[in-house]
Amino acid sequence: MKRTNNSKLRIIPIGGLEQIGMNITAFEYEDSIIVVDCGLAFPEDDMLGIDLVIPDVTYLRDHISKVKGFVITHGHEDHIGALPYILKEMNLPIYTTKLTMGIIENKLREHNLMRSTKRKVVRHGQSINLGKFRIEFIKTNHSIQDASALAIYSPAGIVVHTGDFKVDYTPVFGDAIDLQRFAEIGKKGVLALMSDSTNAERAGFTQSERTVGRTFDHLFAEHSNTRIIIATFASNVDRVQQIINSAYKYGRKVVVEGRSMVNIISTAAELGYLDIPKNTLIEIDKLKNYPPEKTVLITTGSQGESMAALSRMAADIHKKVTIMPGDTVIFSSNPIPGNEKSVSKVINELSAKGANVIFQDAHVSGHACQEELKLIYSLVKPKYAIPVHGEYRHMKANAGIAEQLGIPKENIFILQAGDVLELDDKGARVAGHVQTGAILVDGLGVGDVGNIVLRDRQHLAEDGILIVVLTLAKGTNQLLAGPDIVSRGFVYVRESEGLMEEAKEVLNVALEGCLNSRNADWSKIKLVIRDTMNEFIWKRTKRRPMILPIIMDVNV
Amino acid sequence: MKRTNNSKLRIIPIGGLEQIGMNITAFEYEDSIIVVDCGLAFPEDDMLGIDLVIPDVTYLRDHISKVKGFVITHGHEDHIGALPYILKEMNLPIYTTKLTMGIIENKLREHNLMRSTKRKVVRHGQSINLGKFRIEFIKTNHSIQDASALAIYSPAGIVVHTGDFKVDYTPVFGDAIDLQRFAEIGKKGVLALMSDSTNAERAGFTQSERTVGRTFDHLFAEHSNTRIIIATFASNVDRVQQIINSAYKYGRKVVVEGRSMVNIISTAAELGYLDIPKNTLIEIDKLKNYPPEKTVLITTGSQGESMAALSRMAADIHKKVTIMPGDTVIFSSNPIPGNEKSVSKVINELSAKGANVIFQDAHVSGHACQEELKLIYSLVKPKYAIPVHGEYRHMKANAGIAEQLGIPKENIFILQAGDVLELDDKGARVAGHVQTGAILVDGLGVGDVGNIVLRDRQHLAEDGILIVVLTLAKGTNQLLAGPDIVSRGFVYVRESEGLMEEAKEVLNVALEGCLNSRNADWSKIKLVIRDTMNEFIWKRTKRRPMILPIIMDVNV
Repeated sequence: MKRTNNSKLRIIPIGGLEQIGMNITAFEYEDSIIVVDCGLAFPEDDMLGIDLVIPDVTYLRDHISKVKGFVITHGHEDHIGALPYILKEMNLPIYTTKLTMGIIENKLREHNLMRSTKRKVVRHGQSINLGKFRIEFIKTNHSIQDASALAIYSPAGIVVHTGDFKVDYTPVFGDAIDLQRFAEIGKKGVLALMSDSTNAERAGFTQSERTVGRTFDHLFAEHSNTRIIIATFASNVDRVQQIINSAYKYGRKVVVEGRSMVNIISTAAELGYLDIPKNTLIEIDKLKNYPPEKTVLITTGSQGESMAALSRMAADIHKKVTIMPGDTVIFSSNPIPGNEKSVSKVINELSAKGANVIFQDAHVSGHACQEELKLIYSLVKPKYAIPVHGEYRHMKANAGIAEQLGIPKENIFILQAGDVLELDDKGARVAGHVQTGAILVDGLGVGDVGNIVLRDRQHLAEDGILIVVLTLAKGTNQLLAGPDIVSRGFVYVRESEGLMEEAKEVLNVALEGCLNSRNADWSKIKLVIRDTMNEFIWKRTKRRPMILPIIMDVNV
Repeated sequence: MKRTNNSKLRIIPIGGLEQIGMNITAFEYEDSIIVVDCGLAFPEDDMLGIDLVIPDVTYLRDHISKVKGFVITHGHEDHIGALPYILKEMNLPIYTTKLTMGIIENKLREHNLMRSTKRKVVRHGQSINLGKFRIEFIKTNHSIQDASALAIYSPAGIVVHTGDFKVDYTPVFGDAIDLQRFAEIGKKGVLALMSDSTNAERAGFTQSERTVGRTFDHLFAEHSNTRIIIATFASNVDRVQQIINSAYKYGRKVVVEGRSMVNIISTAAELGYLDIPKNTLIEIDKLKNYPPEKTVLITTGSQGESMAALSRMAADIHKKVTIMPGDTVIFSSNPIPGNEKSVSKVINELSAKGANVIFQDAHVSGHACQEELKLIYSLVKPKYAIPVHGEYRHMKANAGIAEQLGIPKENIFILQAGDVLELDDKGARVAGHVQTGAILVDGLGVGDVGNIVLRDRQHLAEDGILIVVLTLAKGTNQLLAGPDIVSRGFVYVRESEGLMEEAKEVLNVALEGCLNSRNADWSKIKLVIRDTMNEFIWKRTKRRPMILPIIMDVNV
């Protein structure tokens, strides 16, 4: 009887649902667990001071003996970024395609994990066996090369996971998505399809990456008398290829600027994913040897990130590039939700320096729109549909498409992180819930900043802090020094002198009563300080700074 | 000779350029100054804890004897919001149209300024004389009723200021923009046109507000079996009118929810700008007496503002309304740049509760696109063009349109706040610069939070604070108590116990050397504490909390 329970396939999203980022999903069958992707998330606005966010992998830790390794769909941060942090704790092998592995290895080197981590490069069309699973890598298209869908074969059936994908019939490099293979596997009978929901709210088809190349050609022809600066995503190798193509055609030298872009471009070039004509790429220091209209800069900063190369140029703090009136600056990107204002700030700064900023038509998405999702559903014809990769609204839109194509509503699962979806030949159901969550990384600290610290930071950010210090005589509670009041982030010291004097008087009155009573312990005294100050400050300023009483005592 | 200098017209934008918000412009001729609009701005992301921002009106203060009053174009916060704060300091009369005055009076009442403030309601087509100026109010269309352009007649010539406007040939209420009058004044010869740049990057025409009414009719017909909740801007009275019209047509009762919306709607209804059929509007408490499909809620929160009614419904903390599966929620708005993520959060929460969220096609802008700007330039035919109301990119786009229509480049002025543009029959030039700026309002404090406080709040928000307290013996510098270390917003106390113990040891060693040296004054001791802690904490955590040393002394 025990066997029945064990011979179910369990799909457990450990992150990546109802959010953008932190994609990681466990597949479990009997004694085998494989993990698809291991991404990070960027901090939300209320995660003050946090650098990045990684998934809580308690479930993997608790079942580590079963875990066979990581299978990675593509090389974006939201799919690989947490790997170094998780690998430090659990030594597991990585299976993925060549370029994806190259990008991961850059990270492993940085974290000193190259020697300890077993790695295997897999080709599209190839399969690997991990415990009870066989995983086949299927060629797809995305805004980074070498992206894969996965066909996950288990004794309970086949699950197809699209990864992040689009259908590009005319990709810049390599083959189009392997639609035939999706169809072939579909013919065999697919238990479940997990598909990318990012653009599920958008009608129609995502344009081919190649259309952007044509736009570049037009823009290069139109702006033949000015320097051209193009900002795009560091990892979009095809985009960079197309800029290089246009530059070569129009006789311009190319400079690549921005650390993350230089890293990925050199990895891509080394591994043969980028074809750079001889003498086209030059060092940034050589820029001055060429007339501006014979140069192109490809740069990071398309999201208005304050430390990125383009933002530094716009703010006039870039060491090597100064924006000149007449420069043509092209944003080959769309702002990711949340970045609109930073991008607009950079555009304003560039415009004010006389640059001609072009921010339309030089970008296409890397994710499938509704018609592409319909195509994949129709080729794969899964019994169950599991929308992944998106906020709730996106997954709901994806579910709507599945329903429209005839998948019964009860066979569509919008999961939450931690849900355990059990599938077998009898059916599918959410059978439980495991621990998941977000671990915050701040500097060297992984997980040492939690809700209390964040709440304090929020409080400090809103209204600052007011510290009340006093020194008491040990035993007698006689006030030896203070109360002194020091504030930060609350109000201009000069403006608040009178206020602080008054606060001290109010405090002295309150303390007098409290210190004289023999049974006043420190927690009582602190409470009196907090209450007195909170009330006084609120009444006078309508603000609520953090009140922090500190008491010291001295032997007399 | 002195007269020559004085008989120039000076246009001085005190705010509102290179930003959205805080519109206020002074017009000066000899002994007369008039002020057009007096708006507030909402705090930028880096203005932590700030409630709102008002303009620095030092220039008006320094020339108060000349200032004749405020002329207000329309009733949006970015044009009227700073009035109560400025009026508290300088008692000046207000001139504007009826509804605009009604909205201003709500504010004056709140700030107890009704009795002291002289107010005069002006009709469209009417003029007022203020010192050397005559100001004519011209009917325009905008996303709030009773908006005006101004023709400002001065001995140096006529300046036309569009205010915020669009061209709506079929407005919901009242007349279309008075294009004939623009043409007539243009015929007389206009010195300068100051026009709304908000949508100057957008091609074509802004749609008529009436098109939204048709959309509502379709949506009401389509969703006849569910409750309908519509979020829109509190001040868009025409939008509310059209929702009421559709509700009446489809036999639904209407509830208005959200404090700011209730305020403006009742003012508009009182003044006759809103036509509500009898028995259509009901109190929110009566909602339960009607079947859901016979009700409509009009609510605030279209920007995802965390405290607004719709956000509270989405988060399940609204006292009177609970989102039900099947509810149709319509966003009759576009997210203002910067609000995209908050809006998306609300959409996700509503979707997760089973609501059907519609966020497209139920909104039109209130600002002129390129073709409308071309129309106004062509009717007014100004000698000089002065783009206003927008970020730099918007004003630059507006300038591009002016140039395209034949205004010479040197006659187009993209001004910055504080620029003094002098115009006379000989020409126009930026002849100087006056003090301007942003005054931050936090609680009751106006201007008591400045850059130092904001920088401290930013620092506290990023990494928290680490306070080091010690008590010394007066005179001898003998350490009587401490050093104690208290932190907030830095790291979990439990996680950091070891770290803090170690920090104390490091600190003790550093202090020993420093306290023993006879000439160590407190500033020296504090410096040692800061340096020691900064270095230790950075090395161990790669974080830089604020280090705050506090020293007390005691007579022994």
